Amino acid sequence: MSTPASPLRTLLDRRKSGYSLEAPFYTDPAIFEQDIKHIFGQHWIYVGPEVMVPEEGDFVTIEIGRTSVLIVRSDDMQVNAFHNVCRHRGSRLCTEHKGSVGNLVCPYHQWTYNLEGTLLFAEHMGESFNRSGHNLKPVHVRNIAGLIFICLAENPPKDIEDLAAAMTPYIAPHRISDCKIATQIDIIEDCNWKLTMENNRECYHCRGNHPELTISLYEYGFGYAPTPENCEGIDQYNQILEQRHQQWEAMGLPCRELDHLDDCITGFRTQRLPLDRAGQSQTMNAKVASSKLLADFQQADLGALSFWTQPNSWHHFMSDHIVTFTVLPISAEKTMVRTTWLVHKDAVEGRDYNLKDLTAVWVATNAQDRALVERSQQGIRSDAYEPGPYSPFTEMLVEKFCNWYTNRLSALAE
Amino acid sequence: MSTPASPLRTLLDRRKSGYSLEAPFYTDPAIFEQDIKHIFGQHWIYVGPEVMVPEEGDFVTIEIGRTSVLIVRSDDMQVNAFHNVCRHRGSRLCTEHKGSVGNLVCPYHQWTYNLEGTLLFAEHMGESFNRSGHNLKPVHVRNIAGLIFICLAENPPKDIEDLAAAMTPYIAPHRISDCKIATQIDIIEDCNWKLTMENNRECYHCRGNHPELTISLYEYGFGYAPTPENCEGIDQYNQILEQRHQQWEAMGLPCRELDHLDDCITGFRTQRLPLDRAGQSQTMNAKVASSKLLADFQQADLGALSFWTQPNSWHHFMSDHIVTFTVLPISAEKTMVRTTWLVHKDAVEGRDYNLKDLTAVWVATNAQDRALVERSQQGIRSDAYEPGPYSPFTEMLVEKFCNWYTNRLSALAE
Amino acid sequence: MSTPASPLRTLLDRRKSGYSLEAPFYTDPAIFEQDIKHIFGQHWIYVGPEVMVPEEGDFVTIEIGRTSVLIVRSDDMQVNAFHNVCRHRGSRLCTEHKGSVGNLVCPYHQWTYNLEGTLLFAEHMGESFNRSGHNLKPVHVRNIAGLIFICLAENPPKDIEDLAAAMTPYIAPHRISDCKIATQIDIIEDCNWKLTMENNRECYHCRGNHPELTISLYEYGFGYAPTPENCEGIDQYNQILEQRHQQWEAMGLPCRELDHLDDCITGFRTQRLPLDRAGQSQTMNAKVASSKLLADFQQADLGALSFWTQPNSWHHFMSDHIVTFTVLPISAEKTMVRTTWLVHKDAVEGRDYNLKDLTAVWVATNAQDRALVERSQQGIRSDAYEPGPYSPFTEMLVEKFCNWYTNRLSALAE
Ligand code: FES
Ligand code: FES
Ligand code: FES
Ligand SMILES: [Fe+3]
Ligand SMILES: [Fe+3]
Ligand SMILES: [Fe+3]
Repeated sequence: MSTPASPLRTLLDRRKSGYSLEAPFYTDPAIFEQDIKHIFGQHWIYVGPEVMVPEEGDFVTIEIGRTSVLIVRSDDMQVNAFHNVCRHRGSRLCTEHKGSVGNLVCPYHQWTYNLEGTLLFAEHMGESFNRSGHNLKPVHVRNIAGLIFICLAENPPKDIEDLAAAMTPYIAPHRISDCKIATQIDIIEDCNWKLTMENNRECYHCRGNHPELTISLYEYGFGYAPTPENCEGIDQYNQILEQRHQQWEAMGLPCRELDHLDDCITGFRTQRLPLDRAGQSQTMNAKVASSKLLADFQQADLGALSFWTQPNSWHHFMSDHIVTFTVLPISAEKTMVRTTWLVHKDAVEGRDYNLKDLTAVWVATNAQDRALVERSQQGIRSDAYEPGPYSPFTEMLVEKFCNWYTNRLSALAE
Repeated sequence: MSTPASPLRTLLDRRKSGYSLEAPFYTDPAIFEQDIKHIFGQHWIYVGPEVMVPEEGDFVTIEIGRTSVLIVRSDDMQVNAFHNVCRHRGSRLCTEHKGSVGNLVCPYHQWTYNLEGTLLFAEHMGESFNRSGHNLKPVHVRNIAGLIFICLAENPPKDIEDLAAAMTPYIAPHRISDCKIATQIDIIEDCNWKLTMENNRECYHCRGNHPELTISLYEYGFGYAPTPENCEGIDQYNQILEQRHQQWEAMGLPCRELDHLDDCITGFRTQRLPLDRAGQSQTMNAKVASSKLLADFQQADLGALSFWTQPNSWHHFMSDHIVTFTVLPISAEKTMVRTTWLVHKDAVEGRDYNLKDLTAVWVATNAQDRALVERSQQGIRSDAYEPGPYSPFTEMLVEKFCNWYTNRLSALAE
Repeated sequence: MSTPASPLRTLLDRRKSGYSLEAPFYTDPAIFEQDIKHIFGQHWIYVGPEVMVPEEGDFVTIEIGRTSVLIVRSDDMQVNAFHNVCRHRGSRLCTEHKGSVGNLVCPYHQWTYNLEGTLLFAEHMGESFNRSGHNLKPVHVRNIAGLIFICLAENPPKDIEDLAAAMTPYIAPHRISDCKIATQIDIIEDCNWKLTMENNRECYHCRGNHPELTISLYEYGFGYAPTPENCEGIDQYNQILEQRHQQWEAMGLPCRELDHLDDCITGFRTQRLPLDRAGQSQTMNAKVASSKLLADFQQADLGALSFWTQPNSWHHFMSDHIVTFTVLPISAEKTMVRTTWLVHKDAVEGRDYNLKDLTAVWVATNAQDRALVERSQQGIRSDAYEPGPYSPFTEMLVEKFCNWYTNRLSALAE
């Protein structure tokens, strides 16, 4: 006798490939709980660049759903991560989003942990108290060329090592450890986190919505249906692409597309693409925003190395600055997008760069994307919504995101 | 072996006639979903006068629960209705509450529909894309003497034609198509939509709460328990009523009560009643608020033709203006009431009427009713609430509303 | 064949004594409903001092979850309590938090009840209407030496009489009926009500968080792990305690600890403790805040009589003023704490006391406690939270609170 499939299982089984997901994936709090448990709880989650905690004792807190994680630089300069929950009566340890501490002291009854999470001190607990049984609960951390990934699972996916091996040659030349955070901006979007991600995985909407971003972005860089009118433009673009790839690879900068968005557990994709106009950076004039270039770069027109990870990040590495995005779900219909701008640690604000020019393109683009995804969320809440078809030319990566997501949930959910 | 009745079915079966409904009908989000599905999803819903979209390309959006409907005047001057959801990835098409467009262009990837909902254009979709399978989803529309009703069901109740046949002679003389919207005001009430409706269906609360409305409303017009003290007043009122009805009917204005509030699917009621004091209009001095009378009326004292529909509207038609109300549920404990004031389309603000005098009575009355229904909602949330008895003299129409509602839900709910 | 235990029953059965509760007790709306039904619905709830309604016709409303209770002083000076719900269509009768009335008149259709809850008048209800069947629903009231307890149950726990017998000798000397409310402050805490209570039941957190409160509070008064360093201090404290108890008892003021926090249905605890420094009152200098002492007290250093009740109150009685706290749950993660300061009814503000000095300590302490419990709530929402161990020296009363709570819920829940 067969037992009836769970509602989630039914929805997963009938997913129509090439089409957007059914509404409950974007609206149902019960499926959100499954996303938190299986997607965010069992995969490697990008949380920010290592220079968010540059010194010993520096910490940041990261909220994933209702879970708060403490990222802290310990005295041996390791980046550690712990659940931000006291082992006594469960108080949050650190309530600030960032700061610097000697030890981690709970504000409630002053239980005191060191930067490795070891409980050093707990008053009034008596002689029979097992102190070593009450250390902070650790969270797995992997630092890949300066990008910090955490995993809440007991046994994290092992293929993070494949990602590390493949991506380090691409990212390392930009030397994140020699960067500093110029600024960081959080926005809250009233939508499911997957709409934020799907929006990131296509540029079909760019021409109609992103006048600032499309200054430096080549129209043909993210997929295009060939037509008699545009085939010449596409040919031209492909020539530029091939030519720049040869130049950059000769300089030791890997460029070629790697795409593992839906064929492994720790899905990712990368590619270095030329920029349009002045061709240097994602700015309002396509020139560098920081005159102090990253690493030991001698030349400004290095295009943009883009890097995307499942389930929650994307990044653009240029010659002068890096923009890195992490998407953190809050509830079924609320999502946080954190954008971080990195420049060379020796760049001086006001002299080498200014924040307005550095951030102009992505501040504008984020606001536009927010409006788009919030309108999608509203439409999808209607009973009249039904999954619609993805463009085979411009939404292949959205389809890969949905494939990855539904495959992973199918593999893990009850 | 019998299966246990659903909680809703149990509540419906034990409904005690003559008494208010049990608390879950007003508070339970699950029953609200049933209301949205069966009451608002399967019946004709009044959404506003046709002159809310006077010109080709004019549109308004209407929110019923989480569903957004686009009402649009097409080039052939038809009023059409569509689900406000793009067939690509579900974005809301129109996010403004009203506006004017040539075509309906989705803000996300610019899929373009004409005013009949036909998908004209969708870039990047390739040759195999079935464009005609992706038109906007239509919603049924019925224009009754200028009042727009929509129905979200695939097969709308057919007895809307009975309502149309019966009501057109009453309403047509006021010529809505020759009116314009003087103003429209939305208020949000923190209560279940049924409390808003029940409040509308009795004037037991008027004397104690509506000093402005009762200037022009006869005390005896909406039911009264006969007592030795008031029997003379009631007799007098009935004489006035009979006399005015004869006058008005001689002018071609039907007056007599029609009551189908609980004996058909598309329930309604109407009656033309004399007004007190100056006797012309629902204003602070009972005189007309607009000196430019509607239609070709030659005389100002035409009383007030009232019209009520199940589940969500009421209307007052006078010689100089029309006030029309639509109730749109937002959530189990939140409801929108939209009040629209119509005057002759040639009336000039500042010369023939001013908004303050036109709206004074119903702005005040709406605010008072809002306080009453919100206090009811609060009381009903208490575990101590139990259904109370309706007055057999003043709350018959409340009882008919509840009868209609419970009968319709019984017929349709699983 | 056994039926599976309910989730609540499972949680109750596996409760680990000496440890904080599992997360659902603090976060799950379904368990909150059980708390409202069984804990707040079946026990005696402290709502305030009788002088909150000093005169005939004075009323206050008390909100417990979604239930509103009307406390009213009737013409014979009795304190009565009723459900604040009209028996007609359920409107709240009184929407103000306090006021004074002749009769209780429903704002909706003016049904009129006297101060004993009897329905005096209901218009339009016809001859067959059973008026006496529609009186206000009464709520049980017990006035214990001026403290008002209510019980929503039909059959309240009888052992309130044991509490009354035991506590009257302690409380009566402070003569609440000769007091007046100097001020009352409500704060809303974003936490489950049990975290508010647990926080109240220990002073482990005081030294680290309450600089104002610990001016007058002896460090050793609420439990302490003995160490070589502090054993001398503890001995000294115990000598002071014994000596003051003898003095005060000789004056007719009972002092000895009574602890029935977890061995009866109407759990409570009391003790009179000396105060530190000037030793007179819980103020910023430990001196009296009101120069007009309570009752006929001739001496200011009477320490503080503390009184705690399950599930929702605590109180401190001093020579010059009384501070009394009631905790009222709003939702699973929202709680109201009402603090009331009482002084002698003949004390004159500005001459005998001023509000700033009177309230300084507990205004500061409440704000500190609020931060602590809100941080606990946030931590406990994390999946990483697990019950932690209570200190055997400083958290015995927290443990007793949890024992009482889980025992009562086990006894009553389905
Ligand atoms: S909760 Fe952290 S020390 Fe008590
Ligand atoms: S969602 Fe409307 S065009 Fe893509
Ligand atoms: S609801 Fe109270 S009188 Fe009608
Ligand atoms: Fe975008
Ligand atoms: Fe009204
Ligand atoms: Fe405290």
